[in-house]
Amino acid sequence: MVETVSLSRCHGGAQGFYRHTSREIGRSMGFSVFTPAAASKARVPILLWLSGLTCTEENFTIKAGAQRLAADAGFLVVAPDTSPRDTGIEGEDDDWAFGTGAGFYLDATVEPWSRHYRMESYIVRELPGVIADAFPGDPQRMGIFGHSMGGHGALSLALKNPGMFRSVSALAPMNSLMGCQMGIDALQRYLGDDREAWRAYDVVDLIRSGHRAPPILADQGTEDEFLPNLLPDALAAACRDAGQALTLNMREGYDHSYWFIQSFLADHFEHHARALGS
Amino acid sequence: MVETVSLSRCHGGAQGFYRHTSREIGRSMGFSVFTPAAASKARVPILLWLSGLTCTEENFTIKAGAQRLAADAGFLVVAPDTSPRDTGIEGEDDDWAFGTGAGFYLDATVEPWSRHYRMESYIVRELPGVIADAFPGDPQRMGIFGHSMGGHGALSLALKNPGMFRSVSALAPMNSLMGCQMGIDALQRYLGDDREAWRAYDVVDLIRSGHRAPPILADQGTEDEFLPNLLPDALAAACRDAGQALTLNMREGYDHSYWFIQSFLADHFEHHARALGS
Repeated sequence: MVETVSLSRCHGGAQGFYRHTSREIGRSMGFSVFTPAAASKARVPILLWLSGLTCTEENFTIKAGAQRLAADAGFLVVAPDTSPRDTGIEGEDDDWAFGTGAGFYLDATVEPWSRHYRMESYIVRELPGVIADAFPGDPQRMGIFGHSMGGHGALSLALKNPGMFRSVSALAPMNSLMGCQMGIDALQRYLGDDREAWRAYDVVDLIRSGHRAPPILADQGTEDEFLPNLLPDALAAACRDAGQALTLNMREGYDHSYWFIQSFLADHFEHHARALGS
Repeated sequence: MVETVSLSRCHGGAQGFYRHTSREIGRSMGFSVFTPAAASKARVPILLWLSGLTCTEENFTIKAGAQRLAADAGFLVVAPDTSPRDTGIEGEDDDWAFGTGAGFYLDATVEPWSRHYRMESYIVRELPGVIADAFPGDPQRMGIFGHSMGGHGALSLALKNPGMFRSVSALAPMNSLMGCQMGIDALQRYLGDDREAWRAYDVVDLIRSGHRAPPILADQGTEDEFLPNLLPDALAAACRDAGQALTLNMREGYDHSYWFIQSFLADHFEHHARALGS
């Protein structure tokens, strides 16, 4: 059951915020959906956006200017929350880079996080069905994109689920959780000390170990204050060595913010439209 | 002296937030400026946005998707705050429709509000000079637009200052402060009981009493929850009777939110570009 929190007409379609009780997470989860006018005639492609650390389903929806582009392209755009919330797990709100707002799109295996922190299963095995049941989106034409931690999510989930996402792109993605302290800290707390298990959540390692995604579009600002956590060079090297198609645009003077995201979002919609039709 | 609070590269230009000490207000005031890439070669037209009740300089800047349009049109877009803040006046924060966030773009004459609540003088007599001094905008090519209370501000200030604003438009404007209880309450507390003085802040009355503005573009959602405070029919009748050029678009199903604003903002940029060049 999807509950409508709010719904407003927007660019000839509608922007809604919704809640449902997630089977995978075991908690109420919020998400937003932009439904374009084109969806009144037939199911339209789905674009799934994954946000970065500290975000909810609101940040991208409010700040990115995506609705104008989605209306033009005829995409149903879905933005889920970035983690479970109010799980009652002690310490869930203590660290902006772990717990609430920091689900890292993985399935935790360490107690107590493993009880609810199952964002990978939520995004891959639950949300697309919820969307297809309640909205006029076509899960056979689904793309995925995201920012920062959500760029890691988009790339890793596309690499691990061939055929599920027919297009993929990222803005300032975290390209190697194992290659940065913030990622290592999260992997250790969610997955424990067995580093072999971490490799399933490292984009660079996935590419180097043979996983393949549709052609990747990535944008990265040169003045991004989080560059040490993002490692775009490692992504470029892995794709080059492994033969994974990648277009990586370094954007002079841009930072990590939604001012950067909105500046290049039109290119990402075009990238997904080429693969998904629209 | 304009202090830069933050500055991010955006759509080839830059989005900044700024503060300065206002002479008219007697307090620190915040505003945002989007500077387009076109301004690196020559001064560009200025578009002045006035926000609605409860807003700061952030709402429009973050939620409207204006930067993409401003970059394309080559406009410097300025969004000031909607009132003085932290004046120390007792009760300034008690009512969302009066005091903080509710300056109504007028000069208060009743103590204690008259000490700082001088938004009309601030917008007309101070801010354009501050902008021209610190940014590459051309005050000879300046347009004004706004939403709700800010639509009232844009229309009334354009009507009262012929030649200053070469273009004007509004989204869901409050068209007659004297015609709605919310407006009457504000006028009484800011200006006192002399209703003759209120007339300088009533768009419909200004038009009926002979004031003229450049051709007005206005958009109004039919599902706007604040329609009793907006009175679009009164605007249409006054313009028709007085011969003031008006294009009023009633937008089926749209509400009062930024989802509505962003849906029709491109039309407003085109309207201003026709008058201002770009």
